[in-house]
Amino acid sequence: MAQDKKLVEAITSMEEDFAQWYTDVVKKAELIEYSSIRGCMILRPLGYAIWENIQKQLDADFKATGVENVYMPMFIPESLLQKEKDHVEGFAPEVAWVTHGGGEALQERMCVRPTSETLFCDFYSKIIQSHRDLPKLYNQWCSVVRWEKTTRPFLRSMEFLWQEGHTAHATAEEAEERTIQMLNVYADFCERVLAIPMIKGRKSEKEKFAGAHATYTIEALMHDGKALQSGTSHNFGDGFARAFGIQYTDKNNTLQYVHQTSWGMSTRIIGAIIMVHGDDSGLVLPPRIAPTQIMIIPINQNKEGVLDKAFELRDKLSAFKVKVDASEKSPGWKFSEQEMRGIPIRIEIGPKDIEANQAVIVRRDTREKIVVSLDQIVEKAGEVLETMQQDMLNRARAHRDSHTYSATNMDEFTKIIEEKPGFIKAMWCQDEACEKEIKDRTGATSRCMPFEQEHIADTCVCCGKPATTMAYWGKAY
Amino acid sequence: MAQDKKLVEAITSMEEDFAQWYTDVVKKAELIEYSSIRGCMILRPLGYAIWENIQKQLDADFKATGVENVYMPMFIPESLLQKEKDHVEGFAPEVAWVTHGGGEALQERMCVRPTSETLFCDFYSKIIQSHRDLPKLYNQWCSVVRWEKTTRPFLRSMEFLWQEGHTAHATAEEAEERTIQMLNVYADFCERVLAIPMIKGRKSEKEKFAGAHATYTIEALMHDGKALQSGTSHNFGDGFARAFGIQYTDKNNTLQYVHQTSWGMSTRIIGAIIMVHGDDSGLVLPPRIAPTQIMIIPINQNKEGVLDKAFELRDKLSAFKVKVDASEKSPGWKFSEQEMRGIPIRIEIGPKDIEANQAVIVRRDTREKIVVSLDQIVEKAGEVLETMQQDMLNRARAHRDSHTYSATNMDEFTKIIEEKPGFIKAMWCQDEACEKEIKDRTGATSRCMPFEQEHIADTCVCCGKPATTMAYWGKAY
Ligand SMILES: [Zn+2]
Ligand SMILES: [Zn+2]
Repeated sequence: MAQDKKLVEAITSMEEDFAQWYTDVVKKAELIEYSSIRGCMILRPLGYAIWENIQKQLDADFKATGVENVYMPMFIPESLLQKEKDHVEGFAPEVAWVTHGGGEALQERMCVRPTSETLFCDFYSKIIQSHRDLPKLYNQWCSVVRWEKTTRPFLRSMEFLWQEGHTAHATAEEAEERTIQMLNVYADFCERVLAIPMIKGRKSEKEKFAGAHATYTIEALMHDGKALQSGTSHNFGDGFARAFGIQYTDKNNTLQYVHQTSWGMSTRIIGAIIMVHGDDSGLVLPPRIAPTQIMIIPINQNKEGVLDKAFELRDKLSAFKVKVDASEKSPGWKFSEQEMRGIPIRIEIGPKDIEANQAVIVRRDTREKIVVSLDQIVEKAGEVLETMQQDMLNRARAHRDSHTYSATNMDEFTKIIEEKPGFIKAMWCQDEACEKEIKDRTGATSRCMPFEQEHIADTCVCCGKPATTMAYWGKAY
Repeated sequence: MAQDKKLVEAITSMEEDFAQWYTDVVKKAELIEYSSIRGCMILRPLGYAIWENIQKQLDADFKATGVENVYMPMFIPESLLQKEKDHVEGFAPEVAWVTHGGGEALQERMCVRPTSETLFCDFYSKIIQSHRDLPKLYNQWCSVVRWEKTTRPFLRSMEFLWQEGHTAHATAEEAEERTIQMLNVYADFCERVLAIPMIKGRKSEKEKFAGAHATYTIEALMHDGKALQSGTSHNFGDGFARAFGIQYTDKNNTLQYVHQTSWGMSTRIIGAIIMVHGDDSGLVLPPRIAPTQIMIIPINQNKEGVLDKAFELRDKLSAFKVKVDASEKSPGWKFSEQEMRGIPIRIEIGPKDIEANQAVIVRRDTREKIVVSLDQIVEKAGEVLETMQQDMLNRARAHRDSHTYSATNMDEFTKIIEEKPGFIKAMWCQDEACEKEIKDRTGATSRCMPFEQEHIADTCVCCGKPATTMAYWGKAY
């Protein structure tokens, strides 16, 4: 029992200190370990397995829309990075520079990719000649480096894993369509698989990607009421094409510039899974993303027949991702570990259960205990996992909705920010001065101008001039 | 027809110039594109899809042996790289150095990983305390950078994709067992999936990995008679553990050093697939690794019903990786493309075939044409793919065996090297001086001391002193 307590006591409660709770969970659930390199984390087996599951499912979603994977070099020569003016201004301050190689100083230094627009553009300028070469729908899974001052596991690190899609199209309409299509792929994936509901919308001019015409985003609300930008999709128009000379001959044999998009989702989304679903016992993983869905924990495992029965049960449940914890630890310790690691359900089975031809299913999210006949356990386990997946999404949506407020003036706005952390819906004139003033006064940033607009008032929440949009605002990670 | 010729004419024949043939194939089959970064290549969709298939199958083989995936940072601080003496001597001359980040000079420069032994050791020193923490069986899929002077697509590039497994064990025996186990996983995978037979053996002291006690290798013979090291597995003993202080308390509560291994396979293996199986029409992919296994090419596709039938056939063959080439190109052009890209079989179907309820299967490797009733096409396609896979392995083995020679003195050795490119089996005293002399005089290096030893003579092929091993020798990529 002393051991059981040790594991649990080590976590700070969410109410007491959410930031510390988060740090405790990522460490105690063994998602990551800190490395000797400032701001870089090691993804341990559980953390990486979650990313593998995200990759696998998202990659299938991409491919279903015609996307193909490629791999680009990790280095960008300085002259290439500088080709698009806004882009280099946005990224140059936060890159890592390679200046020496093979024992010699380089003639031209190269940065480690912070993102690969410039590389894809250089590539596209070589392989696109005719309208028959379009569209190009390429994606890559890789790591990128951004020299962040302060870092937090998953949320902001110097190096992180992601995917970046880069497409080239014949027309502006096609590019805009693809931009929205991929945003929808992200939002659907997050709802369906991660049980995280998303607000879809457009970023303000100030918040958009360096070099983009328009940036679209999906925004989620964490348990503590802060927002997390969870994926973005950019329409570049023909800006990069003009800078890099990416042209094709159309059907009339006229030279035209291509229109491009890019879109990315990163390991940051694992931070969202933790902060949307976790509780004071640790991680809670949605069944569809959990590397282990069921942990069978034998009770009195040294009694004859118990372990055999546990392994027999595992084989019976092989349609799920199932394991038996047959280690010499106490059942209480095993429960704590299974809970900490967010395994959706555990099945307890001991001598008395075996005698009664039953086992006990315990849901990780609600702790509900369900006694099930061993004859029906496969169907029942499937049902419980499915119900849990749906319940988690519903709970996350209910939490978000009950933490979404409206404000029509700055007094209301400030009061909400101070007293009720969450999303604030407010009208806006789209003037950057108002955006800046709101941030300076409250710490809240414009999260997005949602596709689903509502009319809250006629005037801007900040300056009182006529409003042109409703926006979501909030403090963000 | 002019177009058809263009595609084919562009390849140099293997006999004429093997190196140029290779370069032509990687470009014309659209496996890679050269990038603006010296020595770095872009993996295009076909090249990357082959790598994805390798990854998927090899990863499953790893996991079946208990291996878990993780992800380590891409940077190594200079002080960490220097902790193991032999290792830093081996790698320091060929790394890329990051000296600046976020606009400032770094206090300590960091290299981009050329391999990650030092990072794993640092990690293991933090997470291994007790015998209960062992073994650790971790692997990562990532890219690494080595500052090569001359580069060739897949075979030697500055940045390449690979996997690196790193394990830690309680005993020397367990580490040696794991080293051999993973070498066998590689060899089995190459035979079974890539249809490439491998010679398994131990590297000489001179050729072993920087910091290893012993390096094991799998060696393949290319079509031109040159060898290609295709995967390696290293036993580190406790050398790294002592340098990094990786200790555990055993069951008697005594501190012990762990014993470690590492093992890797890279995109280099794609070079082997090209050079073992390719021909003058381009790539030939073994069915088990081909991203597209069957290309259906409609004949007279503008005639009513032909395209419908082609797509109907595709749906029927959905158990395979199948596509229809419904583009407006001529059938001859489509044949050339399918052959260049190494798609194992094509199915030709035109109005006359449809009338006769049949189609024509054409094997990529032998060009054999097989007329098949549409009622039996699913079974037949499966059979042809399976037969082709086996035939490719048999052909590769026959080629290797017929290009493997024995030499008992340097005259024979030199004559073989000059006249008959291939493997040379020869006895060796294991003195590095002989190894060096053989290399200086013939250009051949010791490939490995094979597990399957043969007694060819009593004395070293070079110095005539008593031999202690039989080794494979050859010119290598
Ligand atoms: Zn305003
Ligand atoms: Zn000798």
